[in-house]
Parts: sequence; structure tokens; C-alpha cells
Amino acid sequence: MVKRGTPPDTIERFEPKVRQGLIVVITGHGKGKTTSALGMALRACGHGMRVCIIQFMKGDLYAGEWDSIKRMNCAIELHATGKGFCGILGNPYPWDEHRANAQDAIDLVQEKISSHNYDLMILDEINNAIKLKLVDLEQVLEILRIKPPMMHLILTGRDAHPQVIELADTVSEIQEIKHAYRKRIEPQPGIDY
Amino acid sequence: MVKRGTPPDTIERFEPKVRQGLIVVITGHGKGKTTSALGMALRACGHGMRVCIIQFMKGDLYAGEWDSIKRMNCAIELHATGKGFCGILGNPYPWDEHRANAQDAIDLVQEKISSHNYDLMILDEINNAIKLKLVDLEQVLEILRIKPPMMHLILTGRDAHPQVIELADTVSEIQEIKHAYRKRIEPQPGIDY
Repeated sequence: MVKRGTPPDTIERFEPKVRQGLIVVITGHGKGKTTSALGMALRACGHGMRVCIIQFMKGDLYAGEWDSIKRMNCAIELHATGKGFCGILGNPYPWDEHRANAQDAIDLVQEKISSHNYDLMILDEINNAIKLKLVDLEQVLEILRIKPPMMHLILTGRDAHPQVIELADTVSEIQEIKHAYRKRIEPQPGIDY
Repeated sequence: MVKRGTPPDTIERFEPKVRQGLIVVITGHGKGKTTSALGMALRACGHGMRVCIIQFMKGDLYAGEWDSIKRMNCAIELHATGKGFCGILGNPYPWDEHRANAQDAIDLVQEKISSHNYDLMILDEINNAIKLKLVDLEQVLEILRIKPPMMHLILTGRDAHPQVIELADTVSEIQEIKHAYRKRIEPQPGIDY
């Protein structure tokens, strides 16, 4: 019968014959890209893995993950490098400033990768950043090339570039079937931020 | 310039004029459904919300989230009620046993909802459970009807029923563009479990 209460005491553990670091791309226009990456960070944390999250286009508005990561007894780092969504209605910063931020974030990624201190790295909204020319495709391809073989790398954001998809092991495209904002429901804490 | 280090000290906070509990469905055959729900749990935790996760079809194999939730200083409960994926190759349990487990999980959902103790509830793989007739569509529609108006409810799993989609506020369908297992890469900790 149902095991009520968290979680079973004795449980089988799967272990792959070969461990390897995967390149995962989460793209598409539907809701769930960043949250899916955050869920993988949560999983990784349970395995004792060290996680680095670099958010390319966020940083102007509070998001719940910032506080929850502080509350976790886990090796998770989060860097919110952006000034919000470039080009989105109401964002006051010029493209140059978004580009300068994104370029500095690329330096940060290279520094973090070179340290070999992480088992999972998340580059949140980097697909968007390529599309908006805040970072160059070649810079991202270089990151994919220098990635340590055992480190997982997750790239999120709309409109993933075909060459990034080509190099990835797992690619999911999230399509919007419905979204609350179309009913004029404002973003809700816990769900949207 | 980029804010290096986690996260900015001063930050604007968005607050919707009207708060309301949303019904969110994450479906489709691509990777990222459960992880997206876990990401929302992580977010909600940062907002100080109370979370209840009931996994309908998992429980036979260790998953990273079980340990990470224990490590979080947050009000998250996780109930793994299942005996793995019904009908999937290698799963030894008969349909009757999966059905009995899922039915007990439905009782648990109703009990938890009636307590009014949660701000976010995740019914993981419940769409699958409907499809496999482990739970009845009518039972799930009843849950949607009795949901407290301020509680968010997330339903994950393949093949969401059209009537569930009809009642939801936000619905995402995750399509598989590529998956590592098609290259015979086994599931990897931190990414797949």
C-alpha cells in the first residue's frame, strides 16, 4: 500500500554503468524552462552534487529561488547577472548595457568552468541571450567545447540555436497550450517567480 | 555591470494586485515535467509557502529530490506513493496493486487539501495515472473543484486529459526534440533522477 510520509526508508538506487556529463537544452515558448532547470538543481543537490546557476537575463526583480537556495544545506551558487529581459516592455536599460552584463556573465561562466568545482551548471536564459545578440553563438559553442566531460550543463531560454541543439544530448521544447496571463492573471509567487 | 555573487541585496519585488491559486498542467512526452514542478516547489519555498508533493507513480527507485527536500529549511512534504511506472518494462507489480496505491494516494490528496495547510500542491504523474485508469477522471475533476481558491495545484504527467486541460489556467506541453537515452546513455543522477 501507499507509503505515507517522506520517503521510503529502504529504496533501490539506480547507478548508470557509465557516468557522464550531459548537455541539456530546455527551450520553447511555454512556461517551465527555468523551473525545470531549478528542479534539476534540487535533484543534483540530493545527490551531493555541486551546482552553479548563472542567470543571464534576470536580476531586476526578486525571484523565490534566491531565498530558497540560501535555505538549502547544499552546494548551490546562484549568480543573477542581468538587468531583466532585454527588449521586453517596461525594461529601461539600453541594449549596450544588457550586452555588457551578458559579456561579463560569459567571463564568469568560463572562470567557473575552469575551476572544475561544479558537477552541474545552469546557464539560465542563455538561448535568449544568443538570439538577442547579447552573447555570440561562437562564445556559447566554445563553452560547450570546454565543458568538463563529467559536468552536466543545462541551457535554458526560448529560441535555442540549431547549432546548440545539435551539440546537446537532451533537448525539450516547451509549448504553451494555455497561460494564465492571457486571462489577465498577473504573475503569482511560487508559480511565476 | 554584472552582480557577481548571490544575489543582489536590494531588489524590487513584484506583487500581483490579486493573489490567486492557479491550476497548472505540465504534460507532453519530453523531459522536464517533474523537474519543472520541483522548481516551482523550490520557488514557493523561497516565498515561505507550504508545499505538499504527492508522487503517484514513483517510489520504487531513489530520486535526488527526496534527500534535497530533507536538507531544505522549508515547509515541503513529499509523499512517494507509487511502485514505479505501471506498464513500463521491468516493473513487476500487477495493475491491481498500482491501482490500489493510486486510490490511496487520492485519499491522501483529499485529506491534505481538506487540512488547508498548503499553499502549493503537486500531483506528480497524475495525468499518467488517469490515462492508465489507476485513478478515475471524475476523482481528479473533484479535486480541482474542491481546491482552496488560494492554493496552487500542479498536475504533471504525459497525456493530460482534455477536461483537466480545460479547467487549468496554465498548460505547458513538453515535446521531446532529443533524448540522451536514444543514444543509449543511461539515466544520470542530477538530471534524470
